[in-house]
Amino acid sequence: MSKVQPRTLSGFMELLPARQAQFDRMAAILRESYSLYGFTALDTPLIESSEVLLAKGGGETEKQIYRFTKGDSDLSLRFDLTVPLAKYVAQNYGHLVFPFRRFQIGKVYRGERAQRGRFREFYQADIDVIGDGKLDISNDAEIPAIIYRTFTALGLRRFQIRVNNRKVLNGFYAMLGLTDQSPAIMRTVDKLEKIGANAVREILTGDGIGLDEAQASEILRFIAIRGTNEEVLSALEAYRGRHPLFDEGLDELTTVTKYLAAFGVPETHFAVDLTIARGLDYYTGTVYETSMLDHPEIGSICSGGRYDNLAEYYTDRQLPGVGISIGLTRLFFVLEDQGYLNDSLNTAPADALILPMTEDLSPAISLATRLRDAGIRTQIYGEKKKFKAKMNYADRIGVPYTIFLGETEISEGCAAVKNMRSGEQVKVPTEETAAFLRAGLAELEKGTPILDQGE
Amino acid sequence: MSKVQPRTLSGFMELLPARQAQFDRMAAILRESYSLYGFTALDTPLIESSEVLLAKGGGETEKQIYRFTKGDSDLSLRFDLTVPLAKYVAQNYGHLVFPFRRFQIGKVYRGERAQRGRFREFYQADIDVIGDGKLDISNDAEIPAIIYRTFTALGLRRFQIRVNNRKVLNGFYAMLGLTDQSPAIMRTVDKLEKIGANAVREILTGDGIGLDEAQASEILRFIAIRGTNEEVLSALEAYRGRHPLFDEGLDELTTVTKYLAAFGVPETHFAVDLTIARGLDYYTGTVYETSMLDHPEIGSICSGGRYDNLAEYYTDRQLPGVGISIGLTRLFFVLEDQGYLNDSLNTAPADALILPMTEDLSPAISLATRLRDAGIRTQIYGEKKKFKAKMNYADRIGVPYTIFLGETEISEGCAAVKNMRSGEQVKVPTEETAAFLRAGLAELEKGTPILDQGE
Repeated sequence: MSKVQPRTLSGFMELLPARQAQFDRMAAILRESYSLYGFTALDTPLIESSEVLLAKGGGETEKQIYRFTKGDSDLSLRFDLTVPLAKYVAQNYGHLVFPFRRFQIGKVYRGERAQRGRFREFYQADIDVIGDGKLDISNDAEIPAIIYRTFTALGLRRFQIRVNNRKVLNGFYAMLGLTDQSPAIMRTVDKLEKIGANAVREILTGDGIGLDEAQASEILRFIAIRGTNEEVLSALEAYRGRHPLFDEGLDELTTVTKYLAAFGVPETHFAVDLTIARGLDYYTGTVYETSMLDHPEIGSICSGGRYDNLAEYYTDRQLPGVGISIGLTRLFFVLEDQGYLNDSLNTAPADALILPMTEDLSPAISLATRLRDAGIRTQIYGEKKKFKAKMNYADRIGVPYTIFLGETEISEGCAAVKNMRSGEQVKVPTEETAAFLRAGLAELEKGTPILDQGE
Repeated sequence: MSKVQPRTLSGFMELLPARQAQFDRMAAILRESYSLYGFTALDTPLIESSEVLLAKGGGETEKQIYRFTKGDSDLSLRFDLTVPLAKYVAQNYGHLVFPFRRFQIGKVYRGERAQRGRFREFYQADIDVIGDGKLDISNDAEIPAIIYRTFTALGLRRFQIRVNNRKVLNGFYAMLGLTDQSPAIMRTVDKLEKIGANAVREILTGDGIGLDEAQASEILRFIAIRGTNEEVLSALEAYRGRHPLFDEGLDELTTVTKYLAAFGVPETHFAVDLTIARGLDYYTGTVYETSMLDHPEIGSICSGGRYDNLAEYYTDRQLPGVGISIGLTRLFFVLEDQGYLNDSLNTAPADALILPMTEDLSPAISLATRLRDAGIRTQIYGEKKKFKAKMNYADRIGVPYTIFLGETEISEGCAAVKNMRSGEQVKVPTEETAAFLRAGLAELEKGTPILDQGE
């Protein structure tokens, strides 16, 4: 029979078992962390009607979308988790309680040009809080606090959440009489870190935006405000009273900063940064970006912000919200690529492997059942192979403990337990085996999935 | 602005938050149960090259598939988790260790005719053990033992795993000289429960298969063998020695039965049943079906079996395996429909809701941080609303505990904790709040996601 070459599509991450275990451990920490803050899990379909998914229409997104017909239906794969959330909230409005706090960790699809580190199928891990009509500013402070806890739980240390407020920016541009140009200005200023101040000035004074030199200088001076959070906020206070939108934004930013400290986020991990604007037009207040301090080149690993209208394409109801998203697949790729993954944590499919040395497997099955009842992930190696092949299997799956069960052990009511890392082998009475293993396994669970060696 | 009607595609399950929590709890139990048996988790792409996914080709499946082009690529959504596993094992053969034990819980896609209880996007939850060249029969006994533990952990009681062996059947037909007709005969016999013995006899003796009355009677007598597992096996012993394939199958079935008892599966939950053949041609040995005893009309809720060649379309290597699959979305639908879901378990997004009664939220945030550090899922209600609106929120999200934090509580260093189910309210010192909540929450966690009231 002629064979088809087995292959995985380019841009689709498919991991070997040990790596998958590392990925899953990270995803589990995200789920747990999001849950601790009272977010409910959603699981929306991967396919939606194109009419619904593309209600907003236009833009780069539409070109990248996986869109197709099935029968009479015009269908698309979701390209983010925000549009499905908007649909869900509009559709189920009467059944939901607001503020509605949801998280979703799921795959999304974008037909990007294939290149290293770019994925066409990738996980996003989103949290959003949606208000009905209004939503308190305290939510804007809690969101980055969640991200701080989440990254810390993963083991990441050298990261910083940078916070700004679009009202501060829009209010500032309104002071200068540049409201109409402000979206274009902000898109430009957003590139400051990538292209530098001179290039930004050139674009600002170029034909497209057309500011004069004084205006460009004023803007560059404004976004150059630096210092501790207190220093930045106090520099901003100097602009107070010149425009109501600015004042409102400054109040919000001040409140977010105050509560972030109350949430226990240290100043090292969180900075008020006026250069952050987020390219997307729908953010209207607080905006966030997160960078790895030792790898600024990879850009933001977690971004989001406040928006006024989650579901304006589906409903007239005003549904303001604030949310943030981790691009988990890309983050995992970067962590692996940069050597951040902690390979010392157990990634074996089992905690213990029983090697039966008798023809009848019943004693091995009894022991396995006992261990599983105690929560220990246990395999029985039931293949009729030579001892060497059995040990080779144990080595290759990387199991922490191998248990030999021969006539002697069975008659003595014990098990010969070998610690595969230390090589030490001891006889343990059957009824104590679970406790013995649990103690050793607990040691192996110490540590985080990410090993961040930075200062 | 004109609005798009928000809607979810027909045949796509999308749950409200409390139902989603119930679904997720079931999925978590499946993951945990599969992991206890030393299966490694895989997560393959939802999209594959059509050439790879449809290597086998033909049949009902291909008509139902979601297939489309993107750029130059002919792509398809996976319609099961077995073909992606075959691809994965063939592709990564050199990196895997055999027997390779994997589980995967993921969505698959089939464009079935939309009708109640039929889904186009649905979860499958699969386990498979793949051998390299050979695979011991003990694996065939462990698979249904895992299903027994899994369903029991979910809370299902009135179910039965039915086991047969295709070699017993094929060997039996070979004795009668009916090897060529045996696939057609088995497909017919498989319908026995649905259509009855007379209709089966009619098809067997009809033009398509063309048996004589004596042959049909012999077959009906054979598949009518009933009784305890011991009785059935001993009735089969009467046929021993007439065909080697039959004898081999009987040995396997006997071994599986013996080890299933060793695995602790009670005879009430497991029956040797000669009518089980599974319609699919690729099963070659042990086959399984699982029925809900009080709802035979819904058919098998968990099926699988032994196959000789997992990946024959991709590789010349002989990769025998044994596996089983739970159609989780359909099972959940049936359980909900038949009133099996245990609504008394906590499905709220949080365990505790803090209602701050002061302008400054800092004390609420401190308490929330303390509770979260102790693993208690905590929400702060930060909206500036009237007390009644706050309590209404607490009621509607169904949170087990509400915590009032006013000036008095803050100055006394305590929290006013209200048990929302009993209505009881007590003052608890701040440092004891976590322990107090944990004790109460532990009570709420007692119970299984399924409430099976059957005998």
